[in-house]
Amino acid sequence: MKALQYPAVGAAPVVLDVPDPEPGPGQVLLKVTAAGVCHSDIAVMSMPAAALRFPLPLTLGHEGAGTVEALGDGATGFALGESVAVYGPWGCGMCHMCAQGKENYCLRAAELQIFPPGLGAPGAIAQYLLVDASRHLVPLGDLDPVRSVPLTDAGLTPYHAIKTSLPKLVGGSTAVVIGAGGLGHVAIQLLRALSPARVVALDVAPEKLELAKEVGAHEALMSDEKAALAVKELTGGRGAEAVFDFVGAPPTVALASACAGVESDVTIVGIGGGSAQVGFGVTPYDAAFRAPYWGTRAELVEVLDLARDGAVSVHVETYSIEEAPRAYERLHAGQVRGRAVILPNG
Amino acid sequence: MKALQYPAVGAAPVVLDVPDPEPGPGQVLLKVTAAGVCHSDIAVMSMPAAALRFPLPLTLGHEGAGTVEALGDGATGFALGESVAVYGPWGCGMCHMCAQGKENYCLRAAELQIFPPGLGAPGAIAQYLLVDASRHLVPLGDLDPVRSVPLTDAGLTPYHAIKTSLPKLVGGSTAVVIGAGGLGHVAIQLLRALSPARVVALDVAPEKLELAKEVGAHEALMSDEKAALAVKELTGGRGAEAVFDFVGAPPTVALASACAGVESDVTIVGIGGGSAQVGFGVTPYDAAFRAPYWGTRAELVEVLDLARDGAVSVHVETYSIEEAPRAYERLHAGQVRGRAVILPNG
Amino acid sequence: MKALQYPAVGAAPVVLDVPDPEPGPGQVLLKVTAAGVCHSDIAVMSMPAAALRFPLPLTLGHEGAGTVEALGDGATGFALGESVAVYGPWGCGMCHMCAQGKENYCLRAAELQIFPPGLGAPGAIAQYLLVDASRHLVPLGDLDPVRSVPLTDAGLTPYHAIKTSLPKLVGGSTAVVIGAGGLGHVAIQLLRALSPARVVALDVAPEKLELAKEVGAHEALMSDEKAALAVKELTGGRGAEAVFDFVGAPPTVALASACAGVESDVTIVGIGGGSAQVGFGVTPYDAAFRAPYWGTRAELVEVLDLARDGAVSVHVETYSIEEAPRAYERLHAGQVRGRAVILPNG
Amino acid sequence: MKALQYPAVGAAPVVLDVPDPEPGPGQVLLKVTAAGVCHSDIAVMSMPAAALRFPLPLTLGHEGAGTVEALGDGATGFALGESVAVYGPWGCGMCHMCAQGKENYCLRAAELQIFPPGLGAPGAIAQYLLVDASRHLVPLGDLDPVRSVPLTDAGLTPYHAIKTSLPKLVGGSTAVVIGAGGLGHVAIQLLRALSPARVVALDVAPEKLELAKEVGAHEALMSDEKAALAVKELTGGRGAEAVFDFVGAPPTVALASACAGVESDVTIVGIGGGSAQVGFGVTPYDAAFRAPYWGTRAELVEVLDLARDGAVSVHVETYSIEEAPRAYERLHAGQVRGRAVILPNG
Repeated sequence: MKALQYPAVGAAPVVLDVPDPEPGPGQVLLKVTAAGVCHSDIAVMSMPAAALRFPLPLTLGHEGAGTVEALGDGATGFALGESVAVYGPWGCGMCHMCAQGKENYCLRAAELQIFPPGLGAPGAIAQYLLVDASRHLVPLGDLDPVRSVPLTDAGLTPYHAIKTSLPKLVGGSTAVVIGAGGLGHVAIQLLRALSPARVVALDVAPEKLELAKEVGAHEALMSDEKAALAVKELTGGRGAEAVFDFVGAPPTVALASACAGVESDVTIVGIGGGSAQVGFGVTPYDAAFRAPYWGTRAELVEVLDLARDGAVSVHVETYSIEEAPRAYERLHAGQVRGRAVILPNG
Repeated sequence: MKALQYPAVGAAPVVLDVPDPEPGPGQVLLKVTAAGVCHSDIAVMSMPAAALRFPLPLTLGHEGAGTVEALGDGATGFALGESVAVYGPWGCGMCHMCAQGKENYCLRAAELQIFPPGLGAPGAIAQYLLVDASRHLVPLGDLDPVRSVPLTDAGLTPYHAIKTSLPKLVGGSTAVVIGAGGLGHVAIQLLRALSPARVVALDVAPEKLELAKEVGAHEALMSDEKAALAVKELTGGRGAEAVFDFVGAPPTVALASACAGVESDVTIVGIGGGSAQVGFGVTPYDAAFRAPYWGTRAELVEVLDLARDGAVSVHVETYSIEEAPRAYERLHAGQVRGRAVILPNG
Repeated sequence: MKALQYPAVGAAPVVLDVPDPEPGPGQVLLKVTAAGVCHSDIAVMSMPAAALRFPLPLTLGHEGAGTVEALGDGATGFALGESVAVYGPWGCGMCHMCAQGKENYCLRAAELQIFPPGLGAPGAIAQYLLVDASRHLVPLGDLDPVRSVPLTDAGLTPYHAIKTSLPKLVGGSTAVVIGAGGLGHVAIQLLRALSPARVVALDVAPEKLELAKEVGAHEALMSDEKAALAVKELTGGRGAEAVFDFVGAPPTVALASACAGVESDVTIVGIGGGSAQVGFGVTPYDAAFRAPYWGTRAELVEVLDLARDGAVSVHVETYSIEEAPRAYERLHAGQVRGRAVILPNG
Repeated sequence: MKALQYPAVGAAPVVLDVPDPEPGPGQVLLKVTAAGVCHSDIAVMSMPAAALRFPLPLTLGHEGAGTVEALGDGATGFALGESVAVYGPWGCGMCHMCAQGKENYCLRAAELQIFPPGLGAPGAIAQYLLVDASRHLVPLGDLDPVRSVPLTDAGLTPYHAIKTSLPKLVGGSTAVVIGAGGLGHVAIQLLRALSPARVVALDVAPEKLELAKEVGAHEALMSDEKAALAVKELTGGRGAEAVFDFVGAPPTVALASACAGVESDVTIVGIGGGSAQVGFGVTPYDAAFRAPYWGTRAELVEVLDLARDGAVSVHVETYSIEEAPRAYERLHAGQVRGRAVILPNG
């Protein structure tokens, strides 16, 4: 089959012919209908060899959807041909975290060398994808796989981050979203659907601010040196109850801190290398700073249900598998509006 | 001043001239701008003498708004002329509940004979209202007192009920509202603003179902013997994650129970004399049944903020104080659409 | 192998020779080290044929522990000979509830005819037990299987019930435990370990009250017509913040209601056929009544960790498999102190 | 009356004669029975003039207890002679935070120049103390004021910090306490009373580690370069579920971060000038870092109830008001075991 592979440290991704995978006991083979392209792949491809925790070559793609092509021995719960999305942050399935469906925080994944597809295990930008267990699949039903596949990361990751903060997002509250790209433009929609908070989007690109308004932000402001002051003014001096930084670079993390109010949540989602300073007298009283990762199994079910109800939809650009390398180039250049999706069999 | 009083058990309410009140230390005198008319007043006027916990005559009205007319010694925090809403469920201010602003659940109100205005203390359907402490006032700012005053009960009560259930109202969930009257038509709006749940309204009156759809219900169904089955079908057999019964009569409480799913919340708000049977094998696993009362101080601030953001608005009919008795007649006859509001000074 | 079976409606349980089970793909075969005897088995054996949802004969025992004897194809995560406890409330593993490890509330178990061992599937009071998936096992490590096996139900069930109420069990609060038997005497220990609440135990048997005091109850009172008044007095008139009824019969449920305070939790765990009346004016404001069932996968891990730390221990009486029928007789007669445990291979 | 005052920036505290205060409307005058001495007073006395937000001289003491000496006009809820503790973090009483009893996070205190007693308003280390409103008093009943007064800060502050983390402190979890001094030795007791967590205390002074063990720590370890590794080993490599740093200096904050696990809470309580770096790849997934301040009104009620039940007790050294300057010297030198308390009328 054809697969998009990252062949060696520093090399560009290439489309190659690789052997067709076959499902072992408990595994499920999918014929891929759609696979998302994500900034974190670029981050992986920028890492030095010493930082990589898995061998190359690697088939890329941690957002995957497909139809069930074959079921390994003992794999149950799905019918051949059924349309499904893949829950990506695979865990051991048995530790205290996995027992709650928080496989993204599996306590034993590192020790057992369990990796997500496209981030260590063979990924979804290929004609076929091997899924290690049927519990990592969620039925799509009538949902369009192309527009749904980004929800497995670009939807699930902000959903997980936002859900923690919902008790703080009461009437009269404000949520700030920094970065209105692939994850941020979904986050804005989720905040509107899940809370009554006023949503303020910050970005450096005018077209991203436009997209932010289109998808429901109450305010969309340039992410510059005046932004924190603007947020303070919009909130009567209090600061925001929740700030979500989907860039995570040093300047955006500093901005996130500056926008936060007493007892707020500051969530650093982007992997831009920034970090916040937290301490008494440094940050507002009881403001909680955290950097979560992806989401839980149940949360993916909930995000897909939100899409089913029309509460969230992703702007997508589609590409054939041969064009996949170009999709990464455009993403790297900041030219993708919403999310790029590869159709490996289409 | 003029006041609408309930003079004696079984008598009709009448407009009378009573002495103007004067604020003692810590108290605040309001010139009333608007006062709401509520079903629970009718319930009080239907009680036998033995059930009444306070003496008559009683000035009615537990939903009040006004402008600050005079401040007693030591009463601070408000300026003369300022427009305010009254938090009605007054408590001692010092017990463990009141220390959290849950004065609606004051542990000492009964012992200390503390009553809400209009439900024991002189109420808001009068030209002036004496408020026992400035902590029971919330600034209205630019909000229209006439359209805001019902939020102090018809908004606060459903808000309090709904807030408890928000963690259960995730993507893909369903909330059922029984009774689309004064409280129910606000509850529907609150559910839409605060959660992504699908909202199903049930009522016996076609015009109430129409109002339910107008204010945002996804479905509005006749509250008859087929309603529970319809809810089960809409939820793939699971039942609703939350059911709010704003009628509280025996048949609606039975309906509420029949609509509920595993781990759901069933909240009986209406004081129609019904009660649910809760037990193992009788109700769905871990479904929680409760009958709350009014709301907290902070929740009133939040509800008014929601109104400020346009997330909730009350349908009102207005009356002069002389017409107040007629407002109660129309309410009793089920003829009020939304909420009746008295303008005692205007 | 030998197994204790419930052969037919109305018959007494008997020890029989049945074929040895063999693990299919994904399944795990245990050599049983210990199996608990529970009141709910007696409830099942009292049901008329029409109420039984599964065919007879049935091997009894829903509390099981064993060593791994054989692993089916694709069953991973455990080594041969490893000592494990069985999580009993099996679910589909994939629905929204199971995705959170709440298999006790599986949305599809009924439809898919999935039953717990001993309550539909072949149970643990046998020499070998077939477990449908390795995710239903928790490592016991050095824990004594005999004293630990009751924790899989008699520990997990009260733990699940109590965990819901922990936010209400702050300093100065009171928890009432009705019934100091198999589950109740564990509940008392859990309340002491997990909260600062004062624990009041109520029972009709003096020796149960003695056990209650031994395991940590602050007060142990006869469960009679004066009990509710005593609880009110102990709580300064407020009532308890949480009441757990491990009997669930009509008089205990009425007692539970009478002990409850404003914003309390009343949890009916026992399956004694009682139900509470919940409504406005009938129950204290915002008191939540529920009837949960068993517990979650993560909660079983937590309960076993509590046992490891010495925070909870079960009083046990042991029996060989031949004596198992007598264990049920003694339980039925109220003669078991703590929990009866069968050692099928010992 | 006699009062301990901080007279001018850089000066040592002195005992002076100052005019007796008199209660205005709504205020309460206390005859002080006991007043606590706290590290944060030393921090205030180390600040340069530019950092002080209030004028000098200042009567010290933000932990106060007394008997009601006089009630201002309209001040209700307490009888003359009644023994009370003072809730110190005074707020406006009316904003959204104060409406929940979170006056420690009052949104308007800075703007309205509201200060706690001893931290801007005249403090408790004096013969009489003026309390601005009766809602800031909690009845002590039979509790010994001398041993209870430190609970108003050294009890309330760790209680508030710990309460946030209780949902994470399930069976099998670990809590780390850095610094076993005035606040830390109370925190250890609170953790034991409120949770089943294993408690690991870290300090640099052997006598503090001894105190830690005495009051209930499971482990007490030197707070050195090996401490983080020891915590990792004690937790099977996972790290602690909650870390409380009562020192807050740069090395302890770094240690706190190094002890934390996935989804943990890291709470910086000490005002030692340290701050943590929080970011993706820098801190464990979803570990929440915060720096809270003092506690809420309801939490003080709960802490005093815990003392009443014997769950927490403070080690105290007592001093007359004339000896108060020496108490500060001993505290500064790290010589106080537990808490120093001044008896201004004793």
